[in-house]
Amino acid sequence: MPRILLTIEYYGKNFCGWQRQKNGVSVQEILENKLKEILDESIVLHGSGRTDSGVNAIAQTAHFDTSSKLPKTAYVPKLNNILPEEIKIKDAKVVDSNFHAQYSVKKKTYIYKMYLSKIASPLKDLGAMQIKFDTIDIDKMNEACKYIVGTHDFSAFKSARSEKLNNVREIYFANFYFKDDILEFKICGNGFLHNMVRILAGTFVDVGIGKLQPCDIEKILQSKDRKKASKTAHANGLYLYSVEY
Amino acid sequence: MPRILLTIEYYGKNFCGWQRQKNGVSVQEILENKLKEILDESIVLHGSGRTDSGVNAIAQTAHFDTSSKLPKTAYVPKLNNILPEEIKIKDAKVVDSNFHAQYSVKKKTYIYKMYLSKIASPLKDLGAMQIKFDTIDIDKMNEACKYIVGTHDFSAFKSARSEKLNNVREIYFANFYFKDDILEFKICGNGFLHNMVRILAGTFVDVGIGKLQPCDIEKILQSKDRKKASKTAHANGLYLYSVEY
Repeated sequence: MPRILLTIEYYGKNFCGWQRQKNGVSVQEILENKLKEILDESIVLHGSGRTDSGVNAIAQTAHFDTSSKLPKTAYVPKLNNILPEEIKIKDAKVVDSNFHAQYSVKKKTYIYKMYLSKIASPLKDLGAMQIKFDTIDIDKMNEACKYIVGTHDFSAFKSARSEKLNNVREIYFANFYFKDDILEFKICGNGFLHNMVRILAGTFVDVGIGKLQPCDIEKILQSKDRKKASKTAHANGLYLYSVEY
Repeated sequence: MPRILLTIEYYGKNFCGWQRQKNGVSVQEILENKLKEILDESIVLHGSGRTDSGVNAIAQTAHFDTSSKLPKTAYVPKLNNILPEEIKIKDAKVVDSNFHAQYSVKKKTYIYKMYLSKIASPLKDLGAMQIKFDTIDIDKMNEACKYIVGTHDFSAFKSARSEKLNNVREIYFANFYFKDDILEFKICGNGFLHNMVRILAGTFVDVGIGKLQPCDIEKILQSKDRKKASKTAHANGLYLYSVEY
């Protein structure tokens, strides 16, 4: 039974996230329904991980097993033809039967987008968080990033609702840079806790506006206390950028 | 009675355009209603010109007269507080009583955004038109642009539904350039006919993909025949970038 790996791009605004939910339409639900439509069998998708309500993906990945003999080159056009405009398949390939979209992950990269303006921008709000300041100290933000690179317990940077027991993750790189007038935060690691990238983004913004000093990041990490970190940044600025195996 | 000039940004996807319409919600209607709410009098807005259904504005302008004594600095926060997220006021200032948002225009600049991909991108589709090719000859597109700079009769590049009699416009500059992976077409002139920027964009894309030669633009202009130009590019890629007085 062939195992197929899909790479999926989506705009998350109108979805309750990747994972099937009782209340709300998820990306997973839509994809499973469309796969059933073209394969004529029930499909269970295994995503690389959840993305929260409103979060976007440039390249989410998910695998499924199928008894269908549909050639792999047919998945992209057939699915995209019936998928809504907010979800499109970028790639479909056959993978080994011991490959798992979640458990085989080696690296994940996220981007968080922001813009500086005292007045909200409807066009930028489509995919970036407003920071209500005219300037921000990006050098201090990058200095702060150094404290999270490496292997750390990120308990202070996970959702208070998260019940995960192992909160140690390795961060390979994290940095801020401007792309035109959008401030981007790019972070790559072996895995991320619930809301971790958004809490990190929110905390680093507080460094950039002078509410926190770069070295405060070390203290927050050591505290393992979610209350010491800053507010969770909005879902709309977050993009799952890549999943590497 | 003070005359106020507003600068407005909007994401056009869910609107029937700038101008009030019987069927559909327009940006003008929403703004006039919100102005009435804060000024407690009926307001008639005069825009710099229409934008079509689905078209975006980075800086549309519109003026109105009011007997209200509301200080001009109060307009931006008061309006933005009650406007939907797709429409925000960037600026409000008092202008002379013989200033007119439409008739005093000296220059208008539009940007048209595109991206190259055989597969649709949900994130880029938010504000750019898909071109289903992997490469495009941007040099030829810029060569084609030279034929429209200056004063010309643009009858071939206006909507067949347009009933304007004077189709002569002056174009100050027009060119294509890449900004990251978005191909932008920027055009500035003393005015534009209905659908003119979108028909120009569609025709220049046909030059870029080799369906037309740059010199064909001259022949199309001379024909004054809409049927000689290419398809109108989608509304979602168009942005009213600036209005100068």
